[in-house]
Amino acid sequence: MHKTKISVVEGVLDANDTIAAVNRADLDRAGVVAVNLMSAPGAGKTSLLERTVGALPGMRVGVLEGDVQGTADADRLAALHVPVAQLNTDPGFGGECHLDANMVRSALPSLPLEELDLLVIENVGNLVCPAEFRVGEHVRVMVSAVTEGEDKPLKYPLMFRACELVLINKIDLLEHLDFDLDHFMHHLDAVHPGVERMLVSARTGAGLDAWRDWLAARVTRTEVPT
Amino acid sequence: MHKTKISVVEGVLDANDTIAAVNRADLDRAGVVAVNLMSAPGAGKTSLLERTVGALPGMRVGVLEGDVQGTADADRLAALHVPVAQLNTDPGFGGECHLDANMVRSALPSLPLEELDLLVIENVGNLVCPAEFRVGEHVRVMVSAVTEGEDKPLKYPLMFRACELVLINKIDLLEHLDFDLDHFMHHLDAVHPGVERMLVSARTGAGLDAWRDWLAARVTRTEVPT
Repeated sequence: MHKTKISVVEGVLDANDTIAAVNRADLDRAGVVAVNLMSAPGAGKTSLLERTVGALPGMRVGVLEGDVQGTADADRLAALHVPVAQLNTDPGFGGECHLDANMVRSALPSLPLEELDLLVIENVGNLVCPAEFRVGEHVRVMVSAVTEGEDKPLKYPLMFRACELVLINKIDLLEHLDFDLDHFMHHLDAVHPGVERMLVSARTGAGLDAWRDWLAARVTRTEVPT
Repeated sequence: MHKTKISVVEGVLDANDTIAAVNRADLDRAGVVAVNLMSAPGAGKTSLLERTVGALPGMRVGVLEGDVQGTADADRLAALHVPVAQLNTDPGFGGECHLDANMVRSALPSLPLEELDLLVIENVGNLVCPAEFRVGEHVRVMVSAVTEGEDKPLKYPLMFRACELVLINKIDLLEHLDFDLDHFMHHLDAVHPGVERMLVSARTGAGLDAWRDWLAARVTRTEVPT
């Protein structure tokens, strides 16, 4: 029974990877770099994007917004006058707590890929399942808010291992918290040694220049070999 | 295909409910009231329990600690000298992001149920899937930290609808946040009208007397008809 379960799981993930590769090929063909942005609920993904997508000079940005229900985040981002597609995972089961490659596949046609340089895919707020499903992205970024506590890398190691960059958000609140930044870094290095990290505050703007530069470098780097 | 998926889902949830009922019967037989405690990662479930389980006079409390990986929370609670059982969901898939009735079933024998009045089942930090799986509990409580933002009831409605009590935690940080408590209450009532709610701070202890009284009343109420 256990063996059967594992086979089914492997089958699901294999199928997902196949579709993710198709998404990736479409994005590459259109010259779009895609970022899969993940975090726990309320870590500040949308607030970070509000201060990012309109402030990348010369870069055409689109957003694919994943939520269990509602269009609140998509509405916030559409106000910045960038193309936004909403993906609600509510009707499904199993798929409800994360985006998978097939969901992203269904949403890609609603975005003008040929007119974009960067696509940010804002995943469902969840530190577990989103890390297991590639959706066709070039790079994975996670947001970890200091308000969530310094033990999170140890408790959700797959998520912290899956990403190429950790944005440590809400640092404006550090002075009001019992949060030991050294401990957090130690835990982060324990599960993903040396992973790139940035201290940021979507509220005050601290550290966001470095984040925007990082995104710009990703897009430029990908364009060179094309 | 869609129909088939729905049937499989219903089958999974039916099987889960069957096992949950068996758990519930075992708890009832032992005279134990079980609370399923849910929240996003880092909302403060364990910190709340640290200030709760040792401060319920005359009540014998046990904890079932659900985590993807690690025993950090169980270790914190064991230091309070109450029976704690750790449940790691790491080996599974699909089951990784929440507790289900069968996982709880496998862990119950490691707790001295006959010697307990209250069992707190601390679920995996996640605002989506834990709300879909009954585990045999008598009551469901969720923790929503004000640091997560006031839009969470609208974005994760099933979780806010599934619980009988919402603990609004980290209120000591309210003065440092752009969090409109009235907006949050409005959103909460939109998805679960009139649900019981308490403003608390696991850090300062604010509001915790009311929470402990609520738990004590639950245990007493259940004991009367027995």
